[in-house]
Amino acid sequence: MCAHKIAVGVLGATGMVGQRYIYLLKDHPWFEVTYVAASPRSAGKKYREAVESRWLIGSDVPAGVADLVVQDANDAKLALGACKFVFSALEMDKDAIKALEAAYAAEGIPVVSNASANRWTDDVPMLIPEINPHHLSVIAEQKKHRGWDKGFIAVKPNCSLQSYMMPIFALQQAGYPVKRMIVTTLQATSGAGYPGVPSFDMIDNIVPYIGGEEEKTEREVLKILGTVKDGKIENAAGPLVAAHCNRVPVIDGHTACVSLEFDLPENKKPSLEEIERVWTAFTALPQELALPSAPVQPIIVRHEPNRPQPRRDRENDKGMAVTIGRLRTCPVFDIRFVALSHNTKRGAALGGILNAELLKAKGFFDAL
Amino acid sequence: MCAHKIAVGVLGATGMVGQRYIYLLKDHPWFEVTYVAASPRSAGKKYREAVESRWLIGSDVPAGVADLVVQDANDAKLALGACKFVFSALEMDKDAIKALEAAYAAEGIPVVSNASANRWTDDVPMLIPEINPHHLSVIAEQKKHRGWDKGFIAVKPNCSLQSYMMPIFALQQAGYPVKRMIVTTLQATSGAGYPGVPSFDMIDNIVPYIGGEEEKTEREVLKILGTVKDGKIENAAGPLVAAHCNRVPVIDGHTACVSLEFDLPENKKPSLEEIERVWTAFTALPQELALPSAPVQPIIVRHEPNRPQPRRDRENDKGMAVTIGRLRTCPVFDIRFVALSHNTKRGAALGGILNAELLKAKGFFDAL
Amino acid sequence: MCAHKIAVGVLGATGMVGQRYIYLLKDHPWFEVTYVAASPRSAGKKYREAVESRWLIGSDVPAGVADLVVQDANDAKLALGACKFVFSALEMDKDAIKALEAAYAAEGIPVVSNASANRWTDDVPMLIPEINPHHLSVIAEQKKHRGWDKGFIAVKPNCSLQSYMMPIFALQQAGYPVKRMIVTTLQATSGAGYPGVPSFDMIDNIVPYIGGEEEKTEREVLKILGTVKDGKIENAAGPLVAAHCNRVPVIDGHTACVSLEFDLPENKKPSLEEIERVWTAFTALPQELALPSAPVQPIIVRHEPNRPQPRRDRENDKGMAVTIGRLRTCPVFDIRFVALSHNTKRGAALGGILNAELLKAKGFFDAL
Amino acid sequence: MCAHKIAVGVLGATGMVGQRYIYLLKDHPWFEVTYVAASPRSAGKKYREAVESRWLIGSDVPAGVADLVVQDANDAKLALGACKFVFSALEMDKDAIKALEAAYAAEGIPVVSNASANRWTDDVPMLIPEINPHHLSVIAEQKKHRGWDKGFIAVKPNCSLQSYMMPIFALQQAGYPVKRMIVTTLQATSGAGYPGVPSFDMIDNIVPYIGGEEEKTEREVLKILGTVKDGKIENAAGPLVAAHCNRVPVIDGHTACVSLEFDLPENKKPSLEEIERVWTAFTALPQELALPSAPVQPIIVRHEPNRPQPRRDRENDKGMAVTIGRLRTCPVFDIRFVALSHNTKRGAALGGILNAELLKAKGFFDAL
Repeated sequence: MCAHKIAVGVLGATGMVGQRYIYLLKDHPWFEVTYVAASPRSAGKKYREAVESRWLIGSDVPAGVADLVVQDANDAKLALGACKFVFSALEMDKDAIKALEAAYAAEGIPVVSNASANRWTDDVPMLIPEINPHHLSVIAEQKKHRGWDKGFIAVKPNCSLQSYMMPIFALQQAGYPVKRMIVTTLQATSGAGYPGVPSFDMIDNIVPYIGGEEEKTEREVLKILGTVKDGKIENAAGPLVAAHCNRVPVIDGHTACVSLEFDLPENKKPSLEEIERVWTAFTALPQELALPSAPVQPIIVRHEPNRPQPRRDRENDKGMAVTIGRLRTCPVFDIRFVALSHNTKRGAALGGILNAELLKAKGFFDAL
Repeated sequence: MCAHKIAVGVLGATGMVGQRYIYLLKDHPWFEVTYVAASPRSAGKKYREAVESRWLIGSDVPAGVADLVVQDANDAKLALGACKFVFSALEMDKDAIKALEAAYAAEGIPVVSNASANRWTDDVPMLIPEINPHHLSVIAEQKKHRGWDKGFIAVKPNCSLQSYMMPIFALQQAGYPVKRMIVTTLQATSGAGYPGVPSFDMIDNIVPYIGGEEEKTEREVLKILGTVKDGKIENAAGPLVAAHCNRVPVIDGHTACVSLEFDLPENKKPSLEEIERVWTAFTALPQELALPSAPVQPIIVRHEPNRPQPRRDRENDKGMAVTIGRLRTCPVFDIRFVALSHNTKRGAALGGILNAELLKAKGFFDAL
Repeated sequence: MCAHKIAVGVLGATGMVGQRYIYLLKDHPWFEVTYVAASPRSAGKKYREAVESRWLIGSDVPAGVADLVVQDANDAKLALGACKFVFSALEMDKDAIKALEAAYAAEGIPVVSNASANRWTDDVPMLIPEINPHHLSVIAEQKKHRGWDKGFIAVKPNCSLQSYMMPIFALQQAGYPVKRMIVTTLQATSGAGYPGVPSFDMIDNIVPYIGGEEEKTEREVLKILGTVKDGKIENAAGPLVAAHCNRVPVIDGHTACVSLEFDLPENKKPSLEEIERVWTAFTALPQELALPSAPVQPIIVRHEPNRPQPRRDRENDKGMAVTIGRLRTCPVFDIRFVALSHNTKRGAALGGILNAELLKAKGFFDAL
Repeated sequence: MCAHKIAVGVLGATGMVGQRYIYLLKDHPWFEVTYVAASPRSAGKKYREAVESRWLIGSDVPAGVADLVVQDANDAKLALGACKFVFSALEMDKDAIKALEAAYAAEGIPVVSNASANRWTDDVPMLIPEINPHHLSVIAEQKKHRGWDKGFIAVKPNCSLQSYMMPIFALQQAGYPVKRMIVTTLQATSGAGYPGVPSFDMIDNIVPYIGGEEEKTEREVLKILGTVKDGKIENAAGPLVAAHCNRVPVIDGHTACVSLEFDLPENKKPSLEEIERVWTAFTALPQELALPSAPVQPIIVRHEPNRPQPRRDRENDKGMAVTIGRLRTCPVFDIRFVALSHNTKRGAALGGILNAELLKAKGFFDAL
């Protein structure tokens, strides 16, 4: 353990998202994994043995974690003293996750969660650090209200919307509010975890359905863009979103085809050039703070006719930049474009790590 | 040669679409392939040898065609006496195809074409037999105007729109005009022919672009729904279409995610039940005439949450039925659904054969 | 129920192999599915509802079976009167299957099994009807020994070896015994059932391992080629087989790359021409009896350099023919070739149906 | 241009292998790309424009190369002064490549080639730096014989054999000579370049054939293991290899299933433990010289039952290590195992770069 690093735990450490946290935290400058917890079935085994031939990312379990003994994630007290805060990649039913994340927080252990269980808890911030860092202000209220001393919960939104959320926000912030949008996503199978989608469904096939995904997407947009009022987050009124979510035979990288209408009179609508300018120039707090996992340029615009493509563009800037292409006018709405983001980096584990970096930079871990 | 069958030729017989014509006409009750023509490179070879290890469909070249000697497609006169009409699956540049199809027609050989070259010729009908058989009336004008005696040209539209064109038409015909729609397609690679899309682009990847496809789709809808005026086809005024066309790793079957708005006051809009009723009940002239390649029920509606899927639904009713699923309300427009059609059957060769069947049934081949 | 057909049941009817039995028996001239049984979880539901959105083959559950009520497969008595014999596609642990198949047989219901549980029971024939129909003679002993009156058990071997077993047997029968062979298989994912192999493992990947498959392959070859002695099957002494089994991203069709050495002096070894002659001329009892599912020509030899390929050749002759290509000399052994067979047709359900057809043709169902 | 780096050129710079050289040399400590040449069609354009939307690796053309003007590769004189040596990734017919590589060498520009044209020229070393660095001694003879002053040609072998060549060599060197082996490869599509294998052949399919690959593999093994005699390389007498080469839907990473027999009496054959020890301990000259692209441990042995897998293991140690798994006895020969190597890194561009590093380290570029 490096003296200057913060000890962190990973809950649900043997699942696919948990493995990604462990892999991506391998050489993190601020955090070091010192605690891994999973289901009772894995508890007591060395991490390397608990995942054995189901280790999915890269060729090997990172050396520093391989010999950690997996603890029972159901007992929050076990984490006390072993780590300062935890990343939650729990895979259980929603109510169980909600109760368990609260248990950790109650023990004084902040929870930075990837799970969807607390996304709609109104005193829990659902963060995209480039968009709504001001939502962190509800944490004080959350702690007070729950009677928690040092612990708290912060979550990240669904991976499905990550590719177009920053572009939309950048436009709104530049004075171009979006009225409504119709989005079709082509989503990678890694989003379904492991074993996840059967290969029988993904060879010579696509599946035009991902359970619950469209509803999540359409609602989460409004909370992310919401405002803080009385210590709680109040949803934004718009934009109105219609989502069509498809599963396609791609390992990593969600692609979105977006048609969008501005909430502006015709003569105030931005030109394609102006839109590209806004996107290319967009930076925010994570860039200002130079957070380790923040992309230098959050939105990359490409001009080739056939880009972005998942395999070519998902890794842009550590897998944390959104790549946009095919920006053009829409015969039905105002503009159309294709947006791509890495669903297991920006959209899951590395997005969660960026949230933790933001929390640290803003002092939320100082008292631990 | 069966005495009662009509002798037909296939132009571009060695290409992927040409091969499909030959495969699908194998046991056709009305037509028999007696003539195959391709580029000068193949001319003079037996068909079996001309395609050799590049035969792509099923395991073997149909016996009746294997020993036909391939002729030079550039010389229309060679077809005289060898066949009554031709299917054009020519793969050349547009102007060359236009000239060549006209040459065959001028020789008195009708051309039923799969090529896009003549889709925008205003006296050439672009047929979906369930939708616009009345467009056949322009053929008389076409012959007169060009000075052709027996020959003429009829074409079929792009494969990309086949999955939603019949559903849209069925709704319009039932009194529910469509104002506008935003469509994202996930298109199979067979649509690009052979060699077509490199595997390097279709393993762990999708390509959010198909050259020219979106423009074709958006325009062709209007001609298909057009009216005949003064011996020419006049485009319909709507619906307005915005298309996002993607290539995905699927062999056959184009999927479309459609959001659609009716051109009706709120209280006149159809319910989901009514829409399903309209679609399920839809039949048209090909069904009435019991054309051999016509599906019994052109539009199939499924209720499972995860259907239609290309591999499971593309072959419905000889690959000629459109399968629809996930019919639901749209938060932005009125309704959303997923539609699937077999791009190389309904969308290409078998669609062309259905066109020829319609022409035959309506007497257009009687004088040959 | 057609009066002239034999009523059959399917055990494990909701699993992938069970579904295939039901699909492939749809229009069978001799058998009709009148009974479906599965786990208690499905029991009591209509078959259509029991499989609902997990129906995997073709677009729809066959009409005749959709409304059958699923019974509990664990209670063999329930099948009495409802069907004459059963196809077993049970997916449970081996001992449970062994006990359950015996229970059905004990009730007087013959079991034609796809499961591996009884493959090594020495009085149970493991049939490939073209190769070892004489193994049926052990059934009399089996019944006597177990005290079964009308019931008995017959099984089929693993799908992995089906592509090269008939070619090997045809050579041996023609006087060219095989001493040893090294085989590498590239196996389709449908062989693993559903959900089976995760798509995460089959996109941009292969898995060079299938649990237990190599051992099964290497041993089963010897029983299939065995002789009957004292009412039991005695393994053949050879050929010696070394198998490397790989899972590849293919839906259906197992490919095998075979290098093989004859057990003959150099001057007695067959030429490539002679081998092709033997294979092409090979027919056996199923062809003689014209069993409905028997291929007309069991072994097809192709000459294109790049065949057989799964998608192009698996459906040859109802998916029941083996297709061979690339027959050439081997620098290490005598010959090399590539062999392909449809793993879920010849290698599973349709192979099981062929076994039942053989049993019926040889009078084994007469007393039922 | 960094003063301390050697200026290098890439011939065939716009093709897939050429692009990989440019990508992989991006931050090379010794070499810097200062010259790019391709066909006359690309000549005169900036490199970025010459590859435009066909740039295949990573998301962007490396900055240092993007603005280089592409030269005509057919004119060797153009490279004089612009670079010290060239990597040849030419894609032309063999004789043309042979002539052109000689032309560069004649101009005093050494050629480190990826092409197969000169692999069988007996005074040209075909290098795997861990195996046959002593073959470099033929270069002196080559120069003398051809009358070349500073220029020379060195090549690398086919990608198909890279996964098992080092393991075989390590065993032979440890006193365990291999008599014969039967190898089946499952090769990635990137090995066929771009556009390469059509996606139509790689969706729900494998192709059991790669033109010329088996012959190359079987012969090249013998030259690689050959000895230098009178300034020329004399092939080794063994091992005897039989190769079955298949194309599978994998982007990068060739997998080989190997059965091998030792040329040793039974009691001298190594145990599996001894073999693993030999492989794990194997290092050679590139490791000793710490060449920048050399893997630290050239052969990695894994114990999970289902490894190596292309997507999980191909990137091991910069894509330069070979990963072996499933080491077990073979019922027909002595041992069996699965070996994996990255075909476009170890097997192509990075292997070529390692060759150049060896040449540099041994002084072959000193006089330039």
